[in-house]
Amino acid sequence: MCVLGTGLIGGSLLRAAVAAGYPAFGYNRSRPGAEAARADGFDVDTDLPAVLGRAAEADALLVVAVPMPAVAHILSSIATFAPGCALTDVVSVKAPVADAVREHGLAARYVGGHPMAGTSESGWQATDAELFRGAVWAVGVDEGTHADPWRRVTRLALDCGSVVVPVVAAEHDRAVARISHLPHVLAEALAASGAAGGPLALGLAAGSFRDGTRVAATAPDLVRAICEPNAGALLEVLDETLDALTAARASLTERGSLADLVQAGHDGRLEYETVDRWEITDVRIGDHDWLERLRAAGQRGGVITKPLD
Amino acid sequence: MCVLGTGLIGGSLLRAAVAAGYPAFGYNRSRPGAEAARADGFDVDTDLPAVLGRAAEADALLVVAVPMPAVAHILSSIATFAPGCALTDVVSVKAPVADAVREHGLAARYVGGHPMAGTSESGWQATDAELFRGAVWAVGVDEGTHADPWRRVTRLALDCGSVVVPVVAAEHDRAVARISHLPHVLAEALAASGAAGGPLALGLAAGSFRDGTRVAATAPDLVRAICEPNAGALLEVLDETLDALTAARASLTERGSLADLVQAGHDGRLEYETVDRWEITDVRIGDHDWLERLRAAGQRGGVITKPLD
Repeated sequence: MCVLGTGLIGGSLLRAAVAAGYPAFGYNRSRPGAEAARADGFDVDTDLPAVLGRAAEADALLVVAVPMPAVAHILSSIATFAPGCALTDVVSVKAPVADAVREHGLAARYVGGHPMAGTSESGWQATDAELFRGAVWAVGVDEGTHADPWRRVTRLALDCGSVVVPVVAAEHDRAVARISHLPHVLAEALAASGAAGGPLALGLAAGSFRDGTRVAATAPDLVRAICEPNAGALLEVLDETLDALTAARASLTERGSLADLVQAGHDGRLEYETVDRWEITDVRIGDHDWLERLRAAGQRGGVITKPLD
Repeated sequence: MCVLGTGLIGGSLLRAAVAAGYPAFGYNRSRPGAEAARADGFDVDTDLPAVLGRAAEADALLVVAVPMPAVAHILSSIATFAPGCALTDVVSVKAPVADAVREHGLAARYVGGHPMAGTSESGWQATDAELFRGAVWAVGVDEGTHADPWRRVTRLALDCGSVVVPVVAAEHDRAVARISHLPHVLAEALAASGAAGGPLALGLAAGSFRDGTRVAATAPDLVRAICEPNAGALLEVLDETLDALTAARASLTERGSLADLVQAGHDGRLEYETVDRWEITDVRIGDHDWLERLRAAGQRGGVITKPLD
């Protein structure tokens, strides 16, 4: 396994893969980042062509673990130095990565991935081999996906302690707009609004403000790299949310009531707390309809917790 | 000390006061609630006139700990059965309580209070003597406040392990609109939006959604009782937030960028994390300008951690 980018997610993946017994090495663009990884005993280099050459020789599974703005550069090097390797990524948005992969002629061996894990920290110093334990890892089941790289990517996710949710790129991006990118946007708006109240308001802030703004502590560049490539889906759900807040505003003004918003929110949180992750067991990877069936199962909340045949 | 209402906040206060050595008793409207408290060894009754008569005899500090919609009823009974007692409250909004107190002719002995603590649970079964430890407790310094009840209320807050922030009612209400009521409103909107994505979206949800929607688990009636009485201040900050989100929407549409919102949010969270709670020491309670000076100190982030003279 070869990780390209050893920041929080890629670095944690390198740690987790090594801990799970994988022969694994990696590339990092910045020298201090690579040195920090090496100081901790990991095999990380700053020479991308050399790392990719080694991956090609070993038939390693390549994992692109850089923010979206750096993806094209990495793919272009992969197309040159390791075009035959199985390929996945851990980028927070899937359709733009899939498009870039196609443009670079790498689609045949590609399976998109997205572990739903992270902290507000970043860089090698924040990496943790246990980051993915108990997390959900989205794995692509888009049309044209091949069984072999799919098995390898799923196996890696499971070996890192995650459960796998099969999902096509566009549906993934719409879903994460709701449950990851919108939370970021609202946390930023809340943090800015709290700070506008000065030391008095910030001094009175307790749990609801602390939790509601936690992800606003994330580095601004990282938040932008996560949210902006998903602008289309994010705008749709942001409009929905602006409509809901505007309706709540009108109801509070006219009737002194927040009843509809509060009930909808409470119901939504309850659905989240009780969402049923059921085990997908009846699909054989590579069967004529396996992608379709996994996609349908994922939509209904199905997950994979051990390798399917 | 006599607590009127033994739900999460009032019940926890009864526990904390008893643990701090106060002779303390209470009233609860519902029989099961009172019985649950009594089963845990606390002196709680459902007969409001009797409880207030006892409080008047003992010159107890009365603490109104019911949601805003029930405050007028309690104050009316206090005016009848214990009009001479020192009086405070732990309601989440201060100007409407102060207005009601004035209407009932109880202003002379009243000092508003609001411990910034709570969980998404409610009722006696959720009470905790340690709920207020390390929390901030807003204590009113409105014009006309008398020194004696102010000392008693502040002492109670400190004895429960809180630090005291002096603040006038209107400023308190504007501040909590930002750091408590807006977080509730945004959490409800986020939870509803996530659930609209169905099992797939909820199944992919991780830390940012979990934390951003935590307070949406609070009982809808309680959220409404907290937010709706502060409609004026909440509408102001909600409009500010809608403007910020609308601007972010335009920037994302036109330039693919969330830069301004993300930077403002990150700066805000950093201000929150580094807010300096400095100790107020140079004010003598009862001096001619004590209220003014405490108010100014509170605005600049000053707190009280031990009784002032």
